[in-house]
Amino acid sequence: MKKKNKKVNAAILVIGNEILSGRTQDKNVAFISNWLNKNCGISVKEVRIIQDLENEIIKNIKNLSKNFNYVFTTGGIGPTHDDITSKSISKAFNVKYEFHKEAFQILEKYYGKQKFNLGRKKMAKMPRGSKLIYNPSSAAPGFMIKNVISLPGVPSILNSMIENSKQFLVRGSKVFSSTLNLFTVESSISSELDLLQKKYKKTIEIGSYPFFRLGKIGVSIVCRSISKKKLSIIQNDLRRMAKSKDIKILKI
Amino acid sequence: MKKKNKKVNAAILVIGNEILSGRTQDKNVAFISNWLNKNCGISVKEVRIIQDLENEIIKNIKNLSKNFNYVFTTGGIGPTHDDITSKSISKAFNVKYEFHKEAFQILEKYYGKQKFNLGRKKMAKMPRGSKLIYNPSSAAPGFMIKNVISLPGVPSILNSMIENSKQFLVRGSKVFSSTLNLFTVESSISSELDLLQKKYKKTIEIGSYPFFRLGKIGVSIVCRSISKKKLSIIQNDLRRMAKSKDIKILKI
Repeated sequence: MKKKNKKVNAAILVIGNEILSGRTQDKNVAFISNWLNKNCGISVKEVRIIQDLENEIIKNIKNLSKNFNYVFTTGGIGPTHDDITSKSISKAFNVKYEFHKEAFQILEKYYGKQKFNLGRKKMAKMPRGSKLIYNPSSAAPGFMIKNVISLPGVPSILNSMIENSKQFLVRGSKVFSSTLNLFTVESSISSELDLLQKKYKKTIEIGSYPFFRLGKIGVSIVCRSISKKKLSIIQNDLRRMAKSKDIKILKI
Repeated sequence: MKKKNKKVNAAILVIGNEILSGRTQDKNVAFISNWLNKNCGISVKEVRIIQDLENEIIKNIKNLSKNFNYVFTTGGIGPTHDDITSKSISKAFNVKYEFHKEAFQILEKYYGKQKFNLGRKKMAKMPRGSKLIYNPSSAAPGFMIKNVISLPGVPSILNSMIENSKQFLVRGSKVFSSTLNLFTVESSISSELDLLQKKYKKTIEIGSYPFFRLGKIGVSIVCRSISKKKLSIIQNDLRRMAKSKDIKILKI
């Protein structure tokens, strides 16, 4: 499936009041983004964090699924009253919200007929036509409908499931990165970085990020490109720049 | 300024490829959200994380500043080529992007005339009419223009500055929260929680979040309300529910 220089992008929609209120620190965005780039060559280009509100979910699913190749949602597919992601996505795509036969069987087997109560049954309801994303941790599957992949919010469960979405994704070109850590401040090298960014405008994205390490301040210069060769060329440029300005390089 | 039951909301716009790529774990969203609720009674209702691209910034500033009382931006106000937040916000509001006299003086004094190079001067440029948010860590100020407050992306610097934005914010009603940790699973109490949420529909927001502690699984029931009294009433409901279902409560 992999094609050369194919750009495939994704958005992440985090659904959950607990992230917005600051009670819970989101960890899924960084995990999904790293996983997608490394394993599928897919770049995350936008993230939204929204409330557990049906209208908000519908509006954002419609918008993001139109503008990105894939949309990953996290949160809101559990058994409680505030889990409204599956129902809302059904409404966004105007398809029935109904029991998925295989999901129902998986959950019934997992809990046993006796303990398969309403809340647990709810986790088998999803948009009609969904493909299942199996869950090796706690049985309740995620799903994919059109270009939207819905995963749970609990990081350990999400992490265990994401591999099972891979089969449904078209692969793009992986973005490689290289980092050079310099003992200087951004404002001492900003004009040099500007020139380098102009030189490699079309092939490399340069970012600069202050760091604090062992009581010293410095700047991480992060270059990202789909060409490993280009990255090694710009590393030489950066090392020459550091040498000419007498800037030490952090060796790690 | 404080009025009773006044709802004031905010959105956060995180500007930075390093967060989207998963290289850097965002910590500012949870910090800003907690700080705003605790100190100003302002609730964060949406977060977006976007690329360092002028068009993206302009589009999102226009949209969010129209739909929320305040918009906090993080990132992109430093000295390097990828710092384009100030310029883009100027364009979004159709005002001049120019040197702010006081910001220029602050930075000139901080760096000294000799070392006040182009990159450093750039940090004194902002939308015309901006009010300064002073920076006790590293001099370069943030700014407020209309209902948008722009802060840097480095968490330690942002944390040191946010107090200086308080004077510009209208205060709302603080949202209080109470948490009860139960040794059960969500799907065992989902129907009871659903009934409680219906009972307190207008005054309390109930969320349930699985936890793993000391090898045991459980559920945190988080109730949020502007009424402390309502919170103590629902705590009694929840404790009664736990007792009736023989669920142990985690004491912390």
